[in-house]
Amino acid sequence: MNIVEELLNNHSRLALSKGITAVENEYDNAVEIMTKIYPHTGNAYVIGITGPPGAGKSTMTDKIAKEYRKRGKTVGIVAIDPTSPYSGGAILGDRIRMMDLMSDEGIFVRSMATRGSLGGLSQKAGDAVKLMDAYGFEVIIVETVGVGQSEVDIVKTADTTMVVVIPGMGDDIQAIKAGILEIGDLITINKADREGTDKLNIEMEMMLELNPEHVSWRPPINRTIASKNEGIEAVVDSIEEHKAYLMESGKLAEIRQARIKTEVVAMVNDRVNRYIDKNVVETDDFGKTVARLSTREIEPYSVVEEIVINVLK
Amino acid sequence: MNIVEELLNNHSRLALSKGITAVENEYDNAVEIMTKIYPHTGNAYVIGITGPPGAGKSTMTDKIAKEYRKRGKTVGIVAIDPTSPYSGGAILGDRIRMMDLMSDEGIFVRSMATRGSLGGLSQKAGDAVKLMDAYGFEVIIVETVGVGQSEVDIVKTADTTMVVVIPGMGDDIQAIKAGILEIGDLITINKADREGTDKLNIEMEMMLELNPEHVSWRPPINRTIASKNEGIEAVVDSIEEHKAYLMESGKLAEIRQARIKTEVVAMVNDRVNRYIDKNVVETDDFGKTVARLSTREIEPYSVVEEIVINVLK
Repeated sequence: MNIVEELLNNHSRLALSKGITAVENEYDNAVEIMTKIYPHTGNAYVIGITGPPGAGKSTMTDKIAKEYRKRGKTVGIVAIDPTSPYSGGAILGDRIRMMDLMSDEGIFVRSMATRGSLGGLSQKAGDAVKLMDAYGFEVIIVETVGVGQSEVDIVKTADTTMVVVIPGMGDDIQAIKAGILEIGDLITINKADREGTDKLNIEMEMMLELNPEHVSWRPPINRTIASKNEGIEAVVDSIEEHKAYLMESGKLAEIRQARIKTEVVAMVNDRVNRYIDKNVVETDDFGKTVARLSTREIEPYSVVEEIVINVLK
Repeated sequence: MNIVEELLNNHSRLALSKGITAVENEYDNAVEIMTKIYPHTGNAYVIGITGPPGAGKSTMTDKIAKEYRKRGKTVGIVAIDPTSPYSGGAILGDRIRMMDLMSDEGIFVRSMATRGSLGGLSQKAGDAVKLMDAYGFEVIIVETVGVGQSEVDIVKTADTTMVVVIPGMGDDIQAIKAGILEIGDLITINKADREGTDKLNIEMEMMLELNPEHVSWRPPINRTIASKNEGIEAVVDSIEEHKAYLMESGKLAEIRQARIKTEVVAMVNDRVNRYIDKNVVETDDFGKTVARLSTREIEPYSVVEEIVINVLK
C-alpha cells in the first residue's frame, strides 16, 4: 500500500493510521511520507487543550469535537496522554467512549504515549497533526495532560490554546495560573458545579488583569460541566472568536511561521543529539570518562568542552 | 568575594547563594565555580520529591527536612516550582513558612523558576545540588511539581525518588501510576484522611504487584497528613531503608554513575543546541527559509538534512 497516495487521493483512514504509526515508531519510510505530504498541509485549524491531571480534558475534547461536528466540521484528535480513553486501555467506559467517537467518519482519534523522549514526542505529535491536516481534517485538537513544560511545548504550537482548570486545586493553582498567563488563549473552568468556582473565576480574572500582554486579546473565561455537555457551545464560540481575531490581526500567519521555525529547530537538535549519542555517548571511551568523573579524578566541564569541539565543525 | 573559597572554606551561606545565582543566570563565572567545586561533591544524599499539583509536596518537603534535622542531619532544599513558598511570592503564609525554615542554620532553601528551557533547568538544578553538596549539606531534597516528563527527569537523577499522590484525582491517576512505576522508589499517599485513601492504596499495591521490575526493592506505600506532621517519621524511615538497600546492593554507585552520564550528555546537547541557535537559527538565511517553508515552497526534511551536514564534523 502506498500510504501517501492512499491518504491524499483515496481518503483512506487506514493510510492515515499507518502514516502516524510510521512517524511514531520512526519507520524507514517516515521521512519520505512526511516530505511528500508536507505541501498538502497548512489548511487545518489546530486547537491545543491542556491542564492539570483530573481537569477532565479528555471529556472536554470529546464534547468540543462533537460540537464541531454539529457545525459541519471534520475533526482530528491527537491525544497525548497515557490516561487517554483512546489508548485502548483496560477500562470499559473508555472503550465505549472511543467507539462512540470513532463510529463517526468525520472524526479521527489517535493517542500517543508519553513514554520516552518528550522532545521526540513533540515532533511526532506535530507530524501526526500534519498527517491529519493533509488528509483533510478541518479542525485538529491536540490534547495533553500536565502543566509540565514539555507538555506545554506541545500545545503551544497550536493556533488556539485552551487551558482547562478545576476548582479545589489548592496552592498549586499558582503554578497553573502562571502557565495560563503564558500559553492560554482561552481559559475554561470545568466541573463548574463544584465549590470554589466563583473564587477561582475571580482569581483568574485578577491574574489576567495584572498581565499587560493581554491588550489586543483578553482570554475569555468560560465555565463548563463537560460531562453534562454544559457550556461547550460557548467554548467553541470562544475558539472561533479567537480564530477570527488571529486572522483579522494577521497574527495567525505569525504563529504559524513561529511554529515552523520551532519544528525545524527541534528536528535539527534531535538529529544532532542522536548523532552525539551514537558517536560519543555509546563509545567505550565515554564509559571510561564517566568512571573517572565519578571518582572526581576529572571534572565534567572540560570533558564537555572537548566533546563539543570534536563534534562541531 | 571569592565565591568558591568562601563556600568551601568559610562555610558562607551568602557564597552558596551567590554560586546558585551564578549558575541560574549563567554568569561568566558559573563554569569556573562549578569546575572548582566539583571535586568536593558526591557526599550528599539526594532525595527527589515529585507528584501532581495539589499533592502537598512543599509541605511534605518542609516536614521531611525538619525530621532530618531532628536526626542530626543538615538539609539543602532545591524547590523547582513557581508555587514554591520559597520563591518569595506574595502570599504571607508562604513567607512565614520560608522564614520558619531559614531561621535554622542547618537548612538552606533555594527555589528555581520553571520558566524557560527545562532542559537547562534540569542542569541548573543539578548544579544547585552540587553547590549545596560541596558546601556540606548532608541531605539534599529536590522538589518538583508535575507529572511531566521534564520534571520527572529532574528528580530521576536523585538517589531516592518519592512520588506523592492524593486521593480523589480521578482518571488521571492512571498517568500518575504509570509515572510511579517508572520512577518512584517510595510512594506516599498524602492527605490520607480524605475519602478514597484505601481505594488508592489498593490500586497502588496492585500496580506494584504487576510490575516485574520490583524484585529486589518493592516501593513501600506510606500514608501521611503532612500538614499535621502525621506519618513523616515513617516516610523518612523508608527513605533511609531505601538508602541502605542501595548501598548494600552496590546500586548507589550505579545510580550515581548514570546520573553523571546523563548530566554530561545534557551539557553537551545544551552547548551544541545553543551553537545551532546562534549560527543557524538566528541568521537571516534561516528566516528566509522559514518564510519559504510556510508557503510550502520547500519542505522541512531536506532543510534539516542540510543544516545537520553543515553543523557536524
